[in-house]
Amino acid sequence: MSSSAAATQEKTAAASVWARIRLADRRDVPNIHRLIRQLAEFELLTHLFSATEASLSDTLFPSPSLPPFLSFTVLVLELSHSPFSEDGDAPLFAPIVRRIDLESAVEDPEAAEFASPRGEGIAVAGFVLCFPNYSGYLAKLGLYIEDIFVRAAWRRRGLGRMLLAAVAGQAAQMGMGRVDSCVLDWNVNAIKLYEDMGAEVVPMRRICRLTGPALQAYVL
Amino acid sequence: MSSSAAATQEKTAAASVWARIRLADRRDVPNIHRLIRQLAEFELLTHLFSATEASLSDTLFPSPSLPPFLSFTVLVLELSHSPFSEDGDAPLFAPIVRRIDLESAVEDPEAAEFASPRGEGIAVAGFVLCFPNYSGYLAKLGLYIEDIFVRAAWRRRGLGRMLLAAVAGQAAQMGMGRVDSCVLDWNVNAIKLYEDMGAEVVPMRRICRLTGPALQAYVL
Repeated sequence: MSSSAAATQEKTAAASVWARIRLADRRDVPNIHRLIRQLAEFELLTHLFSATEASLSDTLFPSPSLPPFLSFTVLVLELSHSPFSEDGDAPLFAPIVRRIDLESAVEDPEAAEFASPRGEGIAVAGFVLCFPNYSGYLAKLGLYIEDIFVRAAWRRRGLGRMLLAAVAGQAAQMGMGRVDSCVLDWNVNAIKLYEDMGAEVVPMRRICRLTGPALQAYVL
Repeated sequence: MSSSAAATQEKTAAASVWARIRLADRRDVPNIHRLIRQLAEFELLTHLFSATEASLSDTLFPSPSLPPFLSFTVLVLELSHSPFSEDGDAPLFAPIVRRIDLESAVEDPEAAEFASPRGEGIAVAGFVLCFPNYSGYLAKLGLYIEDIFVRAAWRRRGLGRMLLAAVAGQAAQMGMGRVDSCVLDWNVNAIKLYEDMGAEVVPMRRICRLTGPALQAYVL
């Protein structure tokens, strides 16, 4: 056991990092809140950002909780410079762990701000928020990715792809029919990622949205 | 009671019809299945239509059931030439009833095929299928309209608007942040309806979809 751990250590060069995707819980809300704010900054949509830690906690982690992927679900992406010890999430969602080999060490100036509640030396680097959708044509559930985000320091290293594959793998395993997401048309990196993963940009579909005072006008 | 009923009858000219929107249940599945097929024909997407009555029933009406609007929800639109007697849906969703004054009587060649399980002389004329979605920016639930449809004989009479207003009213009443839908960009009548209702076509957003064998490739 100790000799195989030593062998693992040897393969883990200075420029390696361990990535883990696990189910989020209430303890992750402060990090999720900061990540959503960064996403709003990235999308130039901070004027729409009104979430608070309390409102996220109430809506994403209600009690009693619903099974993951059958209601609103957040997966967080964590990074550590040493291998993760097991944690107890497996019954609901078995964490996905990969070693990422880096060409050079990554400077993460936000590592302390995004410290994980799951242990020393672990930083949260991204997240995905998804929930079930439904196709009447297929009579099948699917998963809709509402938000997917990797912090700036860690982009272009396959971590977004790892988050997306985690959702796609879950959908496929549950016998679902689709994974959908909605991208900004100027976000060519995101569109390229989806296309590389086998997704197509759906032609001819536009989103209509009723919100704010226009929606309030419909109170019965 | 009988005199007020007579007065109502008097106002109800030959060219009037009563419209009711109520929560669907398993007994409505055959009609919902036929309506979804007609929607696929209208959208020129019959090659995507693979729903069966059994698969719709299992996915839309699982047991135990979840509260309406917090999971997949179907409302059906029914028409009758005489006023509806009350039915017992009110605890979950109070049916919405309107008298529609028509300029001339409407010929509905499909009335028998779409007979409602809720009583003689009632035909199902349309439906809406919606489910909750979520905005991380708002930390609020919303409703997503997956399908909305009125049979050809009954279009252009405000019934689609009535279905949409039922969903918007419910979302507003539940304190939700948005009602979203996805329209085909050539369906100018649908886009005009949404805009008339106060919705905007969201700029710059495109849908990416992973489905079929490309999705199956992600089974873990």
